[in-house]
Amino acid sequence: MATGNNVRKRVIVVGGGFAGINAAMELAKLSVDITLVDRKNYHTFQPLLYQVALAVLSPADIAQPIRSILRDHQNVEVLMDEVVGFDLSDQRVLLKTGSQLEYDYLILASGSTHSYFGKDDWAKLAPGLKTVEDATEIRRRVLLAFELAERQMQEAGSHPPLNFVIVGGGPTGVELAGAISDIAKLYMTKDFRHIDPATAQVLILEGSPSILAAYPPDLQVKAREQLNALGVQVRTGAHVTDVQPGYVMVDDERVESAVTLWAAGVQASPLGKLLGFPTDRRGCVLVDQFLNPPNHPEIFICGDLAHVEENGRQLPGVAQPAMQMGVYAARRIGRLVARDFGSDGTGLNQPFHYFDKGDMATIGRKAAVANIKWPFHGHWSGFPAWMTWLLVHIFFLIGFRNRIAVFSQWAWTYLSFRDGARLITGSQNLPGWNENYGTPEDASIQRSLDLAVPKT
Amino acid sequence: MATGNNVRKRVIVVGGGFAGINAAMELAKLSVDITLVDRKNYHTFQPLLYQVALAVLSPADIAQPIRSILRDHQNVEVLMDEVVGFDLSDQRVLLKTGSQLEYDYLILASGSTHSYFGKDDWAKLAPGLKTVEDATEIRRRVLLAFELAERQMQEAGSHPPLNFVIVGGGPTGVELAGAISDIAKLYMTKDFRHIDPATAQVLILEGSPSILAAYPPDLQVKAREQLNALGVQVRTGAHVTDVQPGYVMVDDERVESAVTLWAAGVQASPLGKLLGFPTDRRGCVLVDQFLNPPNHPEIFICGDLAHVEENGRQLPGVAQPAMQMGVYAARRIGRLVARDFGSDGTGLNQPFHYFDKGDMATIGRKAAVANIKWPFHGHWSGFPAWMTWLLVHIFFLIGFRNRIAVFSQWAWTYLSFRDGARLITGSQNLPGWNENYGTPEDASIQRSLDLAVPKT
Repeated sequence: MATGNNVRKRVIVVGGGFAGINAAMELAKLSVDITLVDRKNYHTFQPLLYQVALAVLSPADIAQPIRSILRDHQNVEVLMDEVVGFDLSDQRVLLKTGSQLEYDYLILASGSTHSYFGKDDWAKLAPGLKTVEDATEIRRRVLLAFELAERQMQEAGSHPPLNFVIVGGGPTGVELAGAISDIAKLYMTKDFRHIDPATAQVLILEGSPSILAAYPPDLQVKAREQLNALGVQVRTGAHVTDVQPGYVMVDDERVESAVTLWAAGVQASPLGKLLGFPTDRRGCVLVDQFLNPPNHPEIFICGDLAHVEENGRQLPGVAQPAMQMGVYAARRIGRLVARDFGSDGTGLNQPFHYFDKGDMATIGRKAAVANIKWPFHGHWSGFPAWMTWLLVHIFFLIGFRNRIAVFSQWAWTYLSFRDGARLITGSQNLPGWNENYGTPEDASIQRSLDLAVPKT
Repeated sequence: MATGNNVRKRVIVVGGGFAGINAAMELAKLSVDITLVDRKNYHTFQPLLYQVALAVLSPADIAQPIRSILRDHQNVEVLMDEVVGFDLSDQRVLLKTGSQLEYDYLILASGSTHSYFGKDDWAKLAPGLKTVEDATEIRRRVLLAFELAERQMQEAGSHPPLNFVIVGGGPTGVELAGAISDIAKLYMTKDFRHIDPATAQVLILEGSPSILAAYPPDLQVKAREQLNALGVQVRTGAHVTDVQPGYVMVDDERVESAVTLWAAGVQASPLGKLLGFPTDRRGCVLVDQFLNPPNHPEIFICGDLAHVEENGRQLPGVAQPAMQMGVYAARRIGRLVARDFGSDGTGLNQPFHYFDKGDMATIGRKAAVANIKWPFHGHWSGFPAWMTWLLVHIFFLIGFRNRIAVFSQWAWTYLSFRDGARLITGSQNLPGWNENYGTPEDASIQRSLDLAVPKT
């Protein structure tokens, strides 16, 4: 145990996502010392990540250094490091650098990553969208597909169809599909001389019977109608059995694909299993009504890593539940600390309850579906839902600068029909790209590899 | 030869930098067909690249897709490909993909890259600043140095000195030095709990007797004074004999360095030598007063790749000469085409002349030196020079959106003492970084490497 009863308590927060940041900000109000540990130096506003992937926003618009968010809280320190294990009996967190951090309370909010259902070799062929690096990789592939087609058309007079296949019809898949369609049909039309970007086809492959499974049926139908209006094809009950360069297999059918994107499955951070408590099949830790794993009231599991049910359904891995869990855990730690210092323990029996304000997903630049549950109930779709989506997301962006930047970027994009961040950076490889081009002997790629892995 | 005398002429422009873009925009006014070839899909406003490297601006603020710049010119097409050779007798450009482009006129403006004076293994230890990827790599290293020191301080109670060594005291070296000093002393002060970022030391090592060799002596002195006021040390006549992880050697003296940056030398693009004409020691092609290499009036060499002298001095490899060369070559092609169509050849004897408006370099966020030659002569330094620098650079940024974005970003940074783009993206390696950390087994790095080099 790190400290006795009457000493200032130490709280370790693992993860700088929505749960971890909100926990740290709430904890900062208490007389405790907080250390937030993350592998990255920045917090990502994931709901807008797809807009970076599709070249409307820049990474800096939606990401904020964690130090910068927490700089004014003197009892919070930030450590850029990776957690590789736990010593639960001594209450220590083990770091990759070899050092250890003692805690009185631990908030574990290390999130989730893509799941390829055991087919990990699909990852390089069909990137998912969880990080800023993922987003710039998707941007690179989508933009290179148009560049490649233009060159093939110029040199050979024809090009394979510009098919963009999105595996998974949840909110991320739907938002990516709408955005790719917009890029091709609105923003790129004047940019090419040989191809017509509007001939691009966007296809969503969803294994279950409907897209947006978490939404009410009427909004599922609306979403599908709005996607079709944009020219996006939706196939439900379509099980992807293989992903290869240039195509995917749906059962025995081959579907051509210039770029394949993965929005199908997530799995919890491996830290959940490292803890040693029971998890569900995705690796989410099963917690009680106080977000504690069995017999460890000093440990809180928050965000995507926690398996929490309300009304018999698991809470979705999105921002709102994560933020509320982080705040709840911090407040409960405040009550536990107060009890140690002689308080009567008021509120100690109050369980976590998710206050569900609803869900939203955009479909291109003019439509969205919104399942609103607060401050009133309503199923909205089309332009009113899109406007609501826009205002809510600007409001929740961390940082005044980012709000201004994103708002002005959107206003510009919307009014000018131009998007602003269409840069192809990084290496120039692409599945299906001419083998003579962009191979490792390409000097710039070689150089970036050299930089990435210094040979000592 | 591509076409006869009375057919519409084809012009190939190689390179989308200042020379190539300005040539293409000027050529677009003529009745010719233009193809601009570049390996990248975007133009970089290089004078502001150091602001991306030091986390004030984002890549999208200073880079613009070439297609987007040229989209309204129907006689210009853009090809994302790499030039690997020339067939001068048949007037063809050979591309990496294997195809060839015929030309009547060729403008070669493929620019320059870093020169490590034959010590190419220094490149990974001391990155230079020519591309957006370079800038994000420098940003990553500078920010990681502070993160590393914070962690060492927390875990071990001490850290090696935060020395930033910049090899080269030209405009790029001076601007990087001023910006790093600002970051450490102004923007980061509240972000860390264990280290004091203001203890960072910035050192410029310049081999020649003075920094800013191209500037008048009084401004060289002013620049040095302003650098010293920021706490930047300047050593002139300092010859770097070795670059190693964690230090550099100046003759026999070892100088500790947490991060080493290279701003010492440039060499011309290898395409210059591939042409087969005489070059200078940097690989710049020696051209006549019309920017033509010997005996090839249909070929123009522009920008950093051209060795052009005025008053006995070679023009510097900066934006203004490149832009003027591009425009000159385009206009001369217009006259040559007009002559073929029966014009009297007016102006055909007019040689290229560089109209020198002066040079500027910033030193941190409040000072600069400006050697103004137009519309009046003056040597400015300090805040007036800085304001002039700011206005000129916003004015010359391509694209209205970028001007607004950069202006608002600067205003924010200046007023808030916060910078906006301090993200560490990409892999997490750093020379001197704990060997147990960020090695290739780190999943995220492994993933980015997998993406960069698909194993087929």
